[in-house]
This record gives sequence, C-alpha cells and structure tokens, in this order.
Amino acid sequence: MKIAIIGYGYWGPNLVRNFSLAENSEVSWVFDLSEKQLDRVKKSYPNIKTTTNYQDILHDPETDAVAIATPVFTHFELAKKAMISGKHVLIEKPMTSSVKESNELIQLSQKSGKVLMVDHTYLYTDAVQKIKDLIVTGQIGKLQYIDSTRINLGLFQRDVNVLWDLAPHDISICNYLMDDFPIAVQAVGAAHTDNNLANIAYLTLFYNDNKIAHFNCSWISPVKIRQMLIGGDQKMILFNDLETTEKLRIYDKGYSIVPESDRNRLLIDYRIGDITIPKIPQTEALASMAKDFINAITTHSVPLSSSKSGLDVVKILEAAEKSIQNKGQYIEF
Amino acid sequence: MKIAIIGYGYWGPNLVRNFSLAENSEVSWVFDLSEKQLDRVKKSYPNIKTTTNYQDILHDPETDAVAIATPVFTHFELAKKAMISGKHVLIEKPMTSSVKESNELIQLSQKSGKVLMVDHTYLYTDAVQKIKDLIVTGQIGKLQYIDSTRINLGLFQRDVNVLWDLAPHDISICNYLMDDFPIAVQAVGAAHTDNNLANIAYLTLFYNDNKIAHFNCSWISPVKIRQMLIGGDQKMILFNDLETTEKLRIYDKGYSIVPESDRNRLLIDYRIGDITIPKIPQTEALASMAKDFINAITTHSVPLSSSKSGLDVVKILEAAEKSIQNKGQYIEF
Amino acid sequence: MKIAIIGYGYWGPNLVRNFSLAENSEVSWVFDLSEKQLDRVKKSYPNIKTTTNYQDILHDPETDAVAIATPVFTHFELAKKAMISGKHVLIEKPMTSSVKESNELIQLSQKSGKVLMVDHTYLYTDAVQKIKDLIVTGQIGKLQYIDSTRINLGLFQRDVNVLWDLAPHDISICNYLMDDFPIAVQAVGAAHTDNNLANIAYLTLFYNDNKIAHFNCSWISPVKIRQMLIGGDQKMILFNDLETTEKLRIYDKGYSIVPESDRNRLLIDYRIGDITIPKIPQTEALASMAKDFINAITTHSVPLSSSKSGLDVVKILEAAEKSIQNKGQYIEF
Amino acid sequence: MKIAIIGYGYWGPNLVRNFSLAENSEVSWVFDLSEKQLDRVKKSYPNIKTTTNYQDILHDPETDAVAIATPVFTHFELAKKAMISGKHVLIEKPMTSSVKESNELIQLSQKSGKVLMVDHTYLYTDAVQKIKDLIVTGQIGKLQYIDSTRINLGLFQRDVNVLWDLAPHDISICNYLMDDFPIAVQAVGAAHTDNNLANIAYLTLFYNDNKIAHFNCSWISPVKIRQMLIGGDQKMILFNDLETTEKLRIYDKGYSIVPESDRNRLLIDYRIGDITIPKIPQTEALASMAKDFINAITTHSVPLSSSKSGLDVVKILEAAEKSIQNKGQYIEF
Repeated sequence: MKIAIIGYGYWGPNLVRNFSLAENSEVSWVFDLSEKQLDRVKKSYPNIKTTTNYQDILHDPETDAVAIATPVFTHFELAKKAMISGKHVLIEKPMTSSVKESNELIQLSQKSGKVLMVDHTYLYTDAVQKIKDLIVTGQIGKLQYIDSTRINLGLFQRDVNVLWDLAPHDISICNYLMDDFPIAVQAVGAAHTDNNLANIAYLTLFYNDNKIAHFNCSWISPVKIRQMLIGGDQKMILFNDLETTEKLRIYDKGYSIVPESDRNRLLIDYRIGDITIPKIPQTEALASMAKDFINAITTHSVPLSSSKSGLDVVKILEAAEKSIQNKGQYIEF
Repeated sequence: MKIAIIGYGYWGPNLVRNFSLAENSEVSWVFDLSEKQLDRVKKSYPNIKTTTNYQDILHDPETDAVAIATPVFTHFELAKKAMISGKHVLIEKPMTSSVKESNELIQLSQKSGKVLMVDHTYLYTDAVQKIKDLIVTGQIGKLQYIDSTRINLGLFQRDVNVLWDLAPHDISICNYLMDDFPIAVQAVGAAHTDNNLANIAYLTLFYNDNKIAHFNCSWISPVKIRQMLIGGDQKMILFNDLETTEKLRIYDKGYSIVPESDRNRLLIDYRIGDITIPKIPQTEALASMAKDFINAITTHSVPLSSSKSGLDVVKILEAAEKSIQNKGQYIEF
Repeated sequence: MKIAIIGYGYWGPNLVRNFSLAENSEVSWVFDLSEKQLDRVKKSYPNIKTTTNYQDILHDPETDAVAIATPVFTHFELAKKAMISGKHVLIEKPMTSSVKESNELIQLSQKSGKVLMVDHTYLYTDAVQKIKDLIVTGQIGKLQYIDSTRINLGLFQRDVNVLWDLAPHDISICNYLMDDFPIAVQAVGAAHTDNNLANIAYLTLFYNDNKIAHFNCSWISPVKIRQMLIGGDQKMILFNDLETTEKLRIYDKGYSIVPESDRNRLLIDYRIGDITIPKIPQTEALASMAKDFINAITTHSVPLSSSKSGLDVVKILEAAEKSIQNKGQYIEF
Repeated sequence: MKIAIIGYGYWGPNLVRNFSLAENSEVSWVFDLSEKQLDRVKKSYPNIKTTTNYQDILHDPETDAVAIATPVFTHFELAKKAMISGKHVLIEKPMTSSVKESNELIQLSQKSGKVLMVDHTYLYTDAVQKIKDLIVTGQIGKLQYIDSTRINLGLFQRDVNVLWDLAPHDISICNYLMDDFPIAVQAVGAAHTDNNLANIAYLTLFYNDNKIAHFNCSWISPVKIRQMLIGGDQKMILFNDLETTEKLRIYDKGYSIVPESDRNRLLIDYRIGDITIPKIPQTEALASMAKDFINAITTHSVPLSSSKSGLDVVKILEAAEKSIQNKGQYIEF
C-alpha cells in the first residue's frame, strides 16, 4: 500500500513515521506548500518523493491513498479531489468544517467504494480501550455521566473557536463510550478577542436515559489539565492523560437508591471501596490507527474511527457553535 | 452581645464555639428540636441554656441576636419571627429558599433597623481576601473568567438540587471578585433519582464586558475537587481549597493582542513567567465572620457578607433552577 | 479504671479525651506544672481534679494508673515513683532517655506486677495494621527493605538530636513489621547549631537476612514528607501518611532472579502490574492504644506497644547517637 | 571538527544527534560491535561511516575526536588508545572504573595536550545552572545540606553496585554546587542477589564547615523519584526532575539562631514565606555539553564537566564501594 502524506506541519511527521513503520505500507509522497518543510523530509527520508503540487500525487497511479494533515478549512477540497482521483482517504480530525462537506465526502466514498476514514487517534489509545472494556463488561454498572476538562494556555486560532480545536478528541471518545449519539447539544462560551470566537467554552451533550456529558475547553488556563471522569453507578473512572504510567484510576465507589425514604434525605446507600490503577500497555495509538486504515482498505472492514464517527463529531461541533451564538440554545438533533 | 444559636447539627457547634470566643459576645441559648443534640451542648457548655421551644428565645429580652443554622426551608420563618421579636439575625447560606422570602426579610430589616446578615463564610477566608487584593490592585490585569469545580461523592438532598447545596459558596465568591451582579444565568444538569432533582449540574454566569463564570457541581464524583481558576489577561490564579498551606498559585501568565494579524493565527503575544505560591495566614474565617456580625450590630456598618449578597445568591440559584428545568434557557436579570 | 494524666502540653489533651471516652476508664487527675494549662482542663472538664503536686496523685488510692506525657528527660523519675506507689504506667515515646533507665523500669514492673507500657501510637493505626497484615499473609513476598523519610521545618530541641524526636515512630513500626530486632545500627548526621546536636540525620538498621531499614530525619527541610517504602520481592508498599484517604499504595511490582546469567546483566525477571489503593478505616489510633492499656491492666495481656518495644527503640536511639558521634561507626547489638 | 561516536546503544544516538546539529561539528564515524545497531545508523544517517573495527577510527587522520558511550569497564582502554592516536576524548560518566585509570588518562591528556572531558550532562541543565546561580549570588544564604533521592525499579547490573549506576549524576551536581570536594565519604547498602553487589545504597558525603550531602539510590523502589533538596539557612530549593515545567521550587524558608537560650528550646527564629516556581528555559543539556567540548578543543578552555570533575566522581564512587564493604566505614580523603 503506497500512501501520500498531505501536509508536513505539526502532525504530518507522525503520520510519515507510522505509515513507514506499518506493515504492508510505504510512504510514497509528502506534499506541503512550504519547501522548507519538504527539506526536512528529504533530510530524514531520502527515499520519499516531495512536492508542492498536489496534482503530482493525484496523477500518480502507484499511490493508493492520501492522509490529510492540513488546516481544517482545506480538508474538504483535498479529500474530494483525492477520492475523485480514486484514492483512499484518511483525514485528521475534525473531518471537515461543516456537516454538508462531511456528508458529501461520505457520499463520494460510498459511490467510489474507496475508504474514507477520519483520524480520531484517541480511540486507539490503550486507556480508552480499557475504559470501553470496563463499560461493556458491566464493571462500572450503569454509565451516568462523562465530565471532561481539556484546558491550557493554547494558541488562539483565527478561524475557529476553541471547541473546534480541543473538543473533537473528547466528543469522539464520548460517543464511543456512550455507544450512542446525543439527542441534544448545548454550549456557551466567551470571546476576549476581536474575531468574537470563543476562547473558553463549555459544551454539554444530552444522551438518552438521563446520561450527560460535559466538556470544559479553554485556551486561557494557566494550568494544563487533560482529565475525564466516567461515572457509573457501581464504579467510577478518572482518566488523567497527563500521567504517563497511571492514566486510569478505577474507584470502587457508587450508590444505590434504597426503596423507602425519610424526611430529609433520599435513602441512598453509598459504597466506598478500593481504588485500582491498572497497568496499561503503552503502545502508540497512531500505529494502531494506521494499521486500521490499511486493514480497512485491504479487507473492506469498517474502521473504528469511521467516517460516520467523523461526521458525528462535526454535527456536534456545528450545533455547538450555533448554540454559543444563540446564548446557550438547546439544539435537538 | 448575647446570641442564640438556632440549630445544633453540622454547623451549629462551629457557631457556638466562635461566638463564645469572639469579643463582646456571649452565647445565651442553643435551640434544637433534638434533645440528644442539646445534651451535647450541656456537656460541653454547661453555662449555655438549651431549649426545643423557639419561643423561649424570642421572648428572652436579654438575647440580642439569633444565628440560624437549620435546613434552608426553615430559614425564612425562623428569621422572620426573630426580626419581629426585635432580634438581629444571621442566617447560614443560602439565605432563603426563594427571592420572595429574601426580599421580605430585607424589608423587615430595613423597617426594624435590625441587622440581617447571611453567613457566606468563604468571603472571610484569607485566600479569598488575597485574591480580591490581587484583583483590586490590578496585579492580574483585566479579569476575564472564573472557572470553579466543586465535586465529590456527596449526600444527595431530598428537597434541592446540587446547586443549592454546593454553588452558594462559589457564587458569593464570584460576585465579590467580579464586584458585579451577572447580566444572565444559564444552567444544565442531570438527575439520576426519582425526585428528578439534578445531582450533577453546570452553571454559567454572564457578566458585563464578556466576563464569564462557570461552576461544575456534582454529588457523584469519585474524587473530591475544590478548585477555582481566576483568569486575568496579565496573571492567572489557581485556588485549590484542598491544599492546606499552598491554597493559591499565582501564574505570571497572560497574553496581549497585537495590532496586526496574519492569515492563520491571531497575533497574540503570550507570556509565561514564574509561579508564586504566597504565604497566607491561616486565621479561622468563621471568627472574622462572627466579628463582622457583632460589628454590624454595634456600629451599624454594612457587613461584607450582607443581606444584599445573600439575596443575590438566591436570585441566581432560583434562576439557575428555572434554567435547568427549561433545558439551559438563557435567563436575563 | 481511674487514670491520671501527667503533663497537659501538646499530647496530654489527646490522652484526656481518649481515656475519658474509653470503656471502663475515667480520668481522675491531670497534673501539670503550669496553672495556666490546668485552667484549660478545668474549663473543658470540670469534673477532673487538677494539681501541680505530683504527690497528690501518687497518694490517691483510687487512681490506678498514670499516663506520662512530659518531656523525655522526666519520664524515668515520674514513672519510677508511680510504679513504687503501685500505679500502672503508660509512657509517651521514647520511653526514657537511656537504656539503663528503661531496664530499671522494666525490672520494677516485673517485680511489682504492674503494667508498664509505652505509647507508640503508630502501631495502632489502621495503615500500619494493614501493612502488617499484607506482610504476615505473605502477599508482598519476602520483605527486603524499609525506607522512611520524615522531614519538615521542625522545632529544634535543646537536649536531643533530631533522631530522638522524629525516629521513634519509624523505629517502632520497623521492628514491628520486620518482626525482629536489628543486628546492628549505623548513623550519620550534621549539626548547624552551637549545641552540636544533629538537626539532620540518617539512620540505618541492619536486620538478619540482608534486610535493611533506612530513616531520613530532618528539622530543616522546606517540605513536609512522611513517607515509608516497604519492599518485598513480590509486592511493594508506599505509605504516605500525609494523605488522608489514600495512605497506602500497593504496587504489584517485583522481580525474581533467573538461574542463568549472561554477560552484561543479571538475569532478573521484572514484573510490573496494577497498583491498588485499599480502603482503610479511619479509626483513631489513640483510642485503640488506650483500650490496649486498659486491657493489659485488666487481663494481664501483653500490649502491642509493650515495654519491650519501648526498650528496643531506646536501645537503637542510644546506639545511633553513639554512631553519629563516632562518624558512622557500625554498632552491633 | 570531525567526531567519531563510540558505542550506539542507549546513549550513542543522542550523541550522534547533538554532534550532528552542533556548530563546527560533524559526526564522521559510528563504532559499535553490533552490525544490527550500525544498520540503524545507516538508515537514519546515510552519510556517516560505520565500523566494528575501532582501528578504522584511530587511523583516520580526519577524525579529531571520539565520544565514548560504551560500558564503563571499556572506557579506559578505548580512551587511552584514542589519546595515543592523537584524538580528543569525551567519555560518558562515570569516567572510568577506578581512580588509577582516571589518573592515567589525565596524565596522558596533559602530556599530549589533547582535551579529555567527561559527560556529566546534568551540569548543563537549566535547572542546575539556576540552582548554582541562586547559590553564588547568595540568595539561599549559607548552604547547609543536599539531600537526593534517585530511586526506581531499575535494571540490575552485573558488574557494579547501584551507586556506580545512579550516583554519578548527583555526585557531580553536588561537588559543583558545593564548589568543593568532600573531606570524607560513608556508605551502606544491601544486596539481594548472588553477586553481592548492593541494589539499594545510601551514600553520605561530608564537606567542610558541617555541610553534608546524602544520596538515596535504589533499583528496587516501586516509585520513581528524582528529587533533590538544597538547603540554605535563608532559602531552600526543591529540585524535582520528573516535573516538566516546574522542576524547581524555591522556598523562602529559613531560620536564624538567636543569641540567648531558654531551658527547653534553642532560641531559633523561623521564617516561612512565599514559594516561587521560576520559569526555566528548556534547552537540551546535551547540546550545551557538545558545544562545551568543541569549544574546549578550539579555544583550549577548561570545560565545565572537566576530567578533574570526572576523577572526583570516580574517587567518591571507589571510596563508597570500600565503605559499603567495610560496614559503613568513614573514609577520609
């Protein structure tokens, strides 16, 4: 499988490295508009061709797929052209700038039979896989909420609010863990720059059965926090992604509602037990993602981070942006 | 000054201790419906009279004031009767169950000339006083946001949602630090019990000039967090109330917006400097609160934790509850 | 059982409270040289007699026992007089200033049949009991080392070095967990004051079978650390006494030595598994200690924190002091 | 300047990278006994020659210097041959296996006029440079002690005890910060394997003027700790090398001895003030080390991490090993 990497900025080098190392995979081209970036490719990978002309890749019959790691607003055009040229396509998250664009790409993919996949890398991490396992095996009981904080002093972006930058990770994880798509979205935020795009924002997703998810995203926090609480009625999980070897803490805490009730308190039976920090392997998530993409092309399987999951994230981001503009409007799907 | 303490549950003993130790103050009575609780008073304070009959206190001409530490739904009646009987009144937070009740008590206070005060203890902590000082002296620059997390595995209450239980602290601090009352409120939450009262809730306050405050409150978190971020454009503060000696961290972090702009990024100048953990005295906040109450009675001064601040908190809680019931409705004041 | 508390400084009030609450126990007297301290007793406990004359207690036939919480150099005389007067004796750690004194008290106790006990409170904590249980049930495998750090900015004492102040806790825990007395002691330290007594010191205990224990004690550390590592070849335990609810972490880490060996490395098989933070009850250790003392008097049982364990600690402290003075001399017992 | 890297195991790749990037420097050869390791070089750096024959390098007149990153027991022979062949020599820490060898290399260097330098990388870190600056500018007052903990579950080595593996970093830092060589060494340890080499060891260095340094080194700790306390009488520093952005905490804590004294306490005046976490640049220490080596060759300057500092570390390690074998013997220099 020969793959061209489109964009050699922050993420591109990771894609080149992982698709070079993956089985049945080879990087044929790297595209970037900057010659300076391409010089770095030549130095590290003398065998990979480079170009500033996207057409070179589209016209190369030996290249089977492209992996797009450029700014979001360019995703749609690049992916569309690649699919029309008969290439399989992998796109960095978020998939596109709008639901309309995502839908169009998915239709193209269905028509052409080519794989369209989005890179929600986090789904492939050992931590998220472990959490998923704890949920599906019933170990945490009934899932009730997900509460995520993803804040730091980050680079403001010109074109999008902070949710488009920081929330895709958490939204894709959340939909995956809930195994559901929300029934409604609600979001608020504040902007402190002239472009009037929120640099601090709070997003709530409402799922069936009173399940709720909340995301605290900020580019203007003095501390860096990457923390997610996953609450079941039997056990609760704290996922701290800044920890290197202790990413998950499983709390044997929960409560059950006792039938009778007295005057001042609900009769609730609390349980507080041990905490377990499971040993989790530290494989590189991106390698698993690359393998899943290659596998999808080869075996026609549906990848974990499918175009459907990519569309779902964009749907939520688009609705969240509308909700912020309408003062926290509750937007049902 | 002779003070009667009304209610000897969780908080009452602290009031008895502090008003016993305060200058120009003496505890004359303790009222509680439970004889068992009153036995504890007799054992520890043989000189304090106890009663299960509130009238005993109302009719005692030597008692100047009452301090009410009973469940919220009883605050209004107890305070009203005390004011009518000519007593000064201190009420635990939140002041009452409704804005209507708070307004009525304030009117009674104005008519009678008796002090009506609410106990927002946190305003008297050295940490909050230090933060206020950093703001008013301009050291953090322009205040932009407050982000608070107050979560733990807490006792569900039968009559109120989690905001009435956990948010009053943060709201009173927030109004005090912002030196303002919000222009609007928005809140969402989820309930996992039959009474349909949220046990997890998210409250946002919108202030003038794009300032925003957000409160994450939960009774169903496996970890206990008491954390508040106070963001200015020059410096930012992290207030971690679970720390004993390092409650505040002052980050010399900020950003300024640079006039020109390029294509992909706002031109923003970030600054990351030292972190300072100031030495803060550890005086008991409740002692300062008691002193402020006595002082208000003696000198007719307006206490820091005034009835106005109590009313403001109840206004916000009432609006927040309405917002939750209306799916995150944006409620303007 | 009527007990007199000797000394009402830092620790005395805790003894009064616990012996007042314990079953079959009553505090008859409190002795202190300071009238001011005794006034505090009168205020809080009007029914307890107070005196500045130790004879009052020795001559009171109704008082069965004394609990001595005075400076170390006074322990011997006070305990000796009490035993001669037919009282049971509890002494705060360290038991006496010298081995000679401890031996004399133990002989007196054996002759009179009265209980002599030392208060090594830590042995009664739920954390230490849990660790002991993990060891005796074989869960951590073969115990190999104990490594303790007990440092902070502490009050320098005039008469003793830092080990006499800080190490008794750790030494008593260590002997208890090792279930052994060391074969040798070695210690070094440094003094930065005129009295030439070490304010920072390092103590090593050598036990049979290559087991080692090391204690880092300091009055001049900027950070407060109370941490003990207990290493087995199957599991290892971290005991952090500054944590409130997460005092113990049990690491499923260990190694086994594999028969063959290669050129550059020992063949060792490492194992890294989960970490468990067990839920531990939070009962007050001092209450259990008080109960054990009363029980020892009533049933003639040997208390956990026996006079033998008190003597052992003094033996080690005395040898450690000699070792420091002789530049780290290895002192065998 | 053309440099050959000797050994391409754990550390060699870092040397190749840094000497490739450094100004006025080029990597000419990489030597390793393993063809497999050399294949990795060829893949990443097609322009660098590789060899399994050390003579190729010694006979290459264009190669100015060698950087030796092989196991310790090989350092001496490789360095000696290189110096005899007229090359400048950089050796990874510890410089050699014995004082005798170090002395011989230093003599060779003096005779030949070629640079001999050891790579104590830590001396070039921004954190250590900041600490040094705080000391020499008098900001922490009189330096009194250094207390270091460097423990984790590490790979046992066949030929050396844990001090030879873990202590060189701390010893080189300590001598540098003390600006002195110790007057005596004392060490104890325990072995739990057949080779009888300590896998847990405690090393104390005694410096003039009651200054003391203590090192806790272990391969059998469940937790990884890299922590150093640097105590002055005015301020104290905590250096936690596992932190990424908050490596140093400067405590405005100290004490002064007050002339008079009372009966129970030394009269000591304690001071507890703010804590500062300084912003420290995050430059790569190894790049500065490489620059210092090239500079020493070019300008005949004495590098910070000189052969003298390398010898000093070996002297201490050799004495420490003897002290452990002699039950903590106090060994004066």
